[in-house]
Amino acid sequence: MYFKVKKKSRENSARLGELKTPHGVIETPVFMPVGTQGTVKGLSPEDLKDAGAGIILGNAYHLYLRPGVEVIREAGGLHKFMSWDRPILTDNGGYQVFSLSDIRKIKEEGVEFKSHIDGSKHLFTPEKVIDIQDGLGVDIVMCFDECAPYPCEREYAEESMKLSLRWGDRCKEQFVKNNNGKQLLFGITQGGMYGDLREASLRGNIKTGFDGYAIGGLSVGEPREAAKEVLSNLLPLMPADKPRYLMGVGTPEELWNYAGLGVDMFDCVIPTRNGRNGQLFTSGGKVNIKSARYKNDFTPLDPTCDCYTCKNFSRAYLAHLFRAGELLALRLNSLHNVYFMVKLMFIIRKSILESNYLKTKEKFLGNYRKGEKKDDLF
Amino acid sequence: MYFKVKKKSRENSARLGELKTPHGVIETPVFMPVGTQGTVKGLSPEDLKDAGAGIILGNAYHLYLRPGVEVIREAGGLHKFMSWDRPILTDNGGYQVFSLSDIRKIKEEGVEFKSHIDGSKHLFTPEKVIDIQDGLGVDIVMCFDECAPYPCEREYAEESMKLSLRWGDRCKEQFVKNNNGKQLLFGITQGGMYGDLREASLRGNIKTGFDGYAIGGLSVGEPREAAKEVLSNLLPLMPADKPRYLMGVGTPEELWNYAGLGVDMFDCVIPTRNGRNGQLFTSGGKVNIKSARYKNDFTPLDPTCDCYTCKNFSRAYLAHLFRAGELLALRLNSLHNVYFMVKLMFIIRKSILESNYLKTKEKFLGNYRKGEKKDDLF
Repeated sequence: MYFKVKKKSRENSARLGELKTPHGVIETPVFMPVGTQGTVKGLSPEDLKDAGAGIILGNAYHLYLRPGVEVIREAGGLHKFMSWDRPILTDNGGYQVFSLSDIRKIKEEGVEFKSHIDGSKHLFTPEKVIDIQDGLGVDIVMCFDECAPYPCEREYAEESMKLSLRWGDRCKEQFVKNNNGKQLLFGITQGGMYGDLREASLRGNIKTGFDGYAIGGLSVGEPREAAKEVLSNLLPLMPADKPRYLMGVGTPEELWNYAGLGVDMFDCVIPTRNGRNGQLFTSGGKVNIKSARYKNDFTPLDPTCDCYTCKNFSRAYLAHLFRAGELLALRLNSLHNVYFMVKLMFIIRKSILESNYLKTKEKFLGNYRKGEKKDDLF
Repeated sequence: MYFKVKKKSRENSARLGELKTPHGVIETPVFMPVGTQGTVKGLSPEDLKDAGAGIILGNAYHLYLRPGVEVIREAGGLHKFMSWDRPILTDNGGYQVFSLSDIRKIKEEGVEFKSHIDGSKHLFTPEKVIDIQDGLGVDIVMCFDECAPYPCEREYAEESMKLSLRWGDRCKEQFVKNNNGKQLLFGITQGGMYGDLREASLRGNIKTGFDGYAIGGLSVGEPREAAKEVLSNLLPLMPADKPRYLMGVGTPEELWNYAGLGVDMFDCVIPTRNGRNGQLFTSGGKVNIKSARYKNDFTPLDPTCDCYTCKNFSRAYLAHLFRAGELLALRLNSLHNVYFMVKLMFIIRKSILESNYLKTKEKFLGNYRKGEKKDDLF
């Protein structure tokens, strides 16, 4: 089997797993840095390996528009094109179609949209989105779905969820037809903040049968309580023997909280985006490197961190680079933040293995939140 | 002695040398990548070492304004601040005072100027510029001079050159007074395009006595014939036992031409600036990565090149990254271009050692200029 749960926590629903893909085995729970356009912003493949990243994301929408699937296929696939030999999962591009493209028209067949790059017209059908990801040659393929906005009327959420289920069926059919035997196909649960719709969506997905189950449509602006409720109710219903992927999440708190509910996979642009904005994660809390206090601070960004940034440079240097608008600032910041998230997942996995999840979480977040209001949701 | 000429070419005036500094030995002729603000744009210290860079430039004007000399002194010097343990030479900032700052007033005492960052008023005297470079703790210190513009009336060029000589004396005096015993001090020859003024400037500098002699005020927009004439006349008059540094130069052709006249040191922003603009140097000529022809070109940028960029990525990928506005494009391009220049100097040194400078130059530039008009100046 490609997925194995190696250990279940007795303290909560966290689980330690192993996911086999054509490009290697991933230990779960895992954090996947986002490489939308065939590169994780600011980082080279070597940087990513230095940061310990085991799997990264690509984006079908972006890569389809630029450089185009044919270019990547000719290059020998996305791995070879971007010189990354570890696993890749591609997001289906649905979220981007709905959020980035100028005009869109949702029909049963698929979605018509205009490219955000040049205004050209395109049609994404479930079949096409599967074919794109086939052409990219990635390890994990996501079904095409509609990601409903937040807030969203019940009627719309229900129609949208049902459409996504029908699209999921067509994705599965196309995936089986392509039958390359190498990729894994994940279905996506939708249904907004409506528990019963979420449940219906999941049951529909399970009926179709996928290699893994993702939860989409969260982290779209909803209150954290709502996300917590949806996830707390949904996760116990998800197949225990399949990987569970919470899309677009999250912060260090969210990773701890949701891994504790049994989520196996996460992705988020936070480490790279925040890095480019000078917002850095450290074991002792967030650091805004733009703050004047760091101009004369010759200590490492995070003294407990072993990343290239922390091993070689001071906060004063990072503050200088950022202020001076130097490219190296963006890279060193992103590298550290990705390392932080990857390391955080390592700590989570270790705490499952050593049966001290809650204690480790409390200690980690206690240090991380120094001086900040405690999150008492979990 | 800190400088040794190991071999002189019999074919021309090229020479192979060794320059000892507190942070290591540099083989000359050498190309120095420019790290104006305490970082070579787009590259980490590790990248620079990968590219084979032996010495880099810093800039006293920029570092004085931001982050400030005190910050760097507190950090333990520029080397430690930027995590670069090989030699550093700092440009004196004169060129930047004259080109970047809003308002400037040249007096015998020094130059009053307003910061291009925040408009604050500052005075650079020769003594202050030496003290700044002392504070930065660099290996090679440049005298403060006035870099006359091009074109420039003879009278202005003469007055300016004489002022630079008087400033050079004061620099030497301050340098001796600081007497840290670790740094080398280079004088700068000025005099515009007037051969007799250049000669007078050089003789004045030699009279004062410096550890090395730089030629400033070229590469400022003058015709190449004028630069060639100035250099052809000046270099034979320069002390043979001291390093000779041609500031702000140059292109691959210029490096071959001027190393052949006996120049030992070069610096230029071309590799990094052109890299950021998508202009790449290869053994087979210049490549504009923005050109549509590279979208489907899956060959390496330069198949003869061993840099990280060429070893791992295709022209198609570089073209995609550049088009997509990805940060990695700037880094991979800059890395390759710096590697190209460093490798070029290695080839020049090897050709001096093996007594085949002219033949090697002809072959190198023949390939490099494929399809371009031949330079017949040298």
